[in-house]
Amino acid sequence: MAKLNENYQNLKESYLFSEIAHRVAKYTQENPDKKVIRLGIGDVTLPLESEVVDSMHKAVDEMGNASSFRGYGPEQGYDFLRNAIKDYYTRNGVSVELDEIFVSDGAKSDTGNITDLFSVDNVVLIPDPVYPVYVDTNTMNGRKIVYLDANAENGFLPLPDESVHADIIYICSPNNPTGAVYNKEQLKIWVDYALKNDAIILFDSAYEAFISDESLPRSIFAIEGAKQCAIEFCSLSKTAGFTGTRCGYTVVPKDLKVTASNGEVMYVNKMWNRRQTTKFNGVPYIVQRGAEAAFSKEGMEQAQKMIGYYKENAKIIADTLDKKNMKYFGGVNSPYIWFECPNNMDSWTFFDYLLTNAQVVGTPGAGFGTNGTNYFRLTSFGNKENTIEAMERFAKLF
Amino acid sequence: MAKLNENYQNLKESYLFSEIAHRVAKYTQENPDKKVIRLGIGDVTLPLESEVVDSMHKAVDEMGNASSFRGYGPEQGYDFLRNAIKDYYTRNGVSVELDEIFVSDGAKSDTGNITDLFSVDNVVLIPDPVYPVYVDTNTMNGRKIVYLDANAENGFLPLPDESVHADIIYICSPNNPTGAVYNKEQLKIWVDYALKNDAIILFDSAYEAFISDESLPRSIFAIEGAKQCAIEFCSLSKTAGFTGTRCGYTVVPKDLKVTASNGEVMYVNKMWNRRQTTKFNGVPYIVQRGAEAAFSKEGMEQAQKMIGYYKENAKIIADTLDKKNMKYFGGVNSPYIWFECPNNMDSWTFFDYLLTNAQVVGTPGAGFGTNGTNYFRLTSFGNKENTIEAMERFAKLF
Repeated sequence: MAKLNENYQNLKESYLFSEIAHRVAKYTQENPDKKVIRLGIGDVTLPLESEVVDSMHKAVDEMGNASSFRGYGPEQGYDFLRNAIKDYYTRNGVSVELDEIFVSDGAKSDTGNITDLFSVDNVVLIPDPVYPVYVDTNTMNGRKIVYLDANAENGFLPLPDESVHADIIYICSPNNPTGAVYNKEQLKIWVDYALKNDAIILFDSAYEAFISDESLPRSIFAIEGAKQCAIEFCSLSKTAGFTGTRCGYTVVPKDLKVTASNGEVMYVNKMWNRRQTTKFNGVPYIVQRGAEAAFSKEGMEQAQKMIGYYKENAKIIADTLDKKNMKYFGGVNSPYIWFECPNNMDSWTFFDYLLTNAQVVGTPGAGFGTNGTNYFRLTSFGNKENTIEAMERFAKLF
Repeated sequence: MAKLNENYQNLKESYLFSEIAHRVAKYTQENPDKKVIRLGIGDVTLPLESEVVDSMHKAVDEMGNASSFRGYGPEQGYDFLRNAIKDYYTRNGVSVELDEIFVSDGAKSDTGNITDLFSVDNVVLIPDPVYPVYVDTNTMNGRKIVYLDANAENGFLPLPDESVHADIIYICSPNNPTGAVYNKEQLKIWVDYALKNDAIILFDSAYEAFISDESLPRSIFAIEGAKQCAIEFCSLSKTAGFTGTRCGYTVVPKDLKVTASNGEVMYVNKMWNRRQTTKFNGVPYIVQRGAEAAFSKEGMEQAQKMIGYYKENAKIIADTLDKKNMKYFGGVNSPYIWFECPNNMDSWTFFDYLLTNAQVVGTPGAGFGTNGTNYFRLTSFGNKENTIEAMERFAKLF
């Protein structure tokens, strides 16, 4: 008899965004005259930049022409794009090699699929609150998960607890949902902990492009020793508005190795290469040309303008909270603003309160873990006029 | 200490195509004046059809415009494409529901990732010879694999051995590499065997568009009972030349269920939905619009012309083998022609012989399993003039 993976029985229903949609739909149906503004969404809204659009048009034409048509490409990504990514790292002061870069259809896929490389009997350390995919993908594999408290006391930037042993460690910085960003000294403590425990850090850097404070690390590989203990996941989703275009990349250092039970040294880079060449056929050529354009000088200037637009929204939200003396996290080097719900409301009560009284939609922190129960996430991915209006309404409430 | 998945130590190096490339490079370097013709490649060579190109240009423009920009789409694929796929099935006489269709970046990804849904302790039945991904992905998971002899005696279309128990069964029809196609009666025997053994059939239908004999099934769901025991993997790679554009789809029937050890009924469709929404973010919008166009009336006409072109090449190869009284498999309802190497040569010896004496490159059957040791694969994906010339040279040799 075929036996299914019964770990799936331990998954919680992922109802956060459907529950939000349900409550908003009910409210708008009952109040058709009210203008609801959505600041809950973690998705970009600005269109693709012209450099990317032009480049993809060119690539579409190439694919329609016998002399320039491309069939199967290298599963790891075309060298033109891997080189562009390598150069992007170099500009950010980090050196990575071409064959350490793997182009993919997004950081979500890679942070999920990377779990293929690990045995079941690893202890996985995951901060709470956090992006739910880390918990779900490890639950699917039946791994033991230990949680690390991220809270207001540690600025939602927890450091290792030396009394807790972990084999695999998830770090997301700038963080989704809290917007908090680790500095170099803090990340160094994590790298040292991983090296001491022979643990591997899975570093989710999907929001690195929102870091404008040059003292903050945009890559874990800016930290000495990280190439012996870390894998980094990046994405063009938020950097260049690729959420519907799908392109990310993962850096697996060639120095990262583990001795197997039979004494053989196994290299994670070689394993990921084998995984990707066996289970993946690469990113569409057209998309890779778009991504290459996003990394060009002009492309990066246009991307920076988009990020600047979103960061202005973040500032509008942050300024409002400042004026009301409400403490928040994120909002400066991140598209997310995270704050404690006022008046001791839990996050779903506050969701309803804000929707009903200000017609503003945010995301209840409870969706990201226990430590989010009394917190709320607003995002800067809306349009500017709406963000201003939403925060004016917000200000009047408190 | 982080523990890696040591099943990776049991993977064989996948050296087939690199070894071919190596031998061809050596030969051309030593014989720069000789024109080498490649009929080994399993990749399309004709450009994308104009319907697809036009549609993708339109989609690129939409993505560059604020009012029509699309961010994250549904992980399962947009309804416009799922409806087009549903209609395609209907035209082929098979009824599937919209939420049984999952759009993906290709059949290779899905046939690999589907293994996530199964526990380790399943016995997997895989024909030999076969597309190597089935073996590799199950080896990565540490599952027990039993092989099923496909050979000249059974026409490379083996039927179940009732004395062998299997939980998961891979069937690829039209087959890669043999080109053999199961008829309805044969597939019915497989479906009955699966139902009797509570096994699940993973049916790889990537080459279904090459079937022109209307009595042959293009989908396993043309067989009664299959919706209780089968999952089907399809692709636009060979149907519409999408190898570099990346779009496939998998059909997981809602009737497919297994009772877990705790008595709970688990539905494979729900599990795959959970897997894809957790570990995948959907196919690029631009590519989905291209795929939609490929399924349109005009798109299908253009796709049929491409397939017709490749099938003419297959006929050129088959006719040559017929004239020489060499028995072959495939070539009619498939892009592949599979034949025993002449003069008792093993497949690598024949590879060298053909390269040296006719400057024609094929694929040694040994790369697909033990039963391919003395067989050879030629493909119809080259251009017509080259195929004619290659087979003229071939004819002179024997």
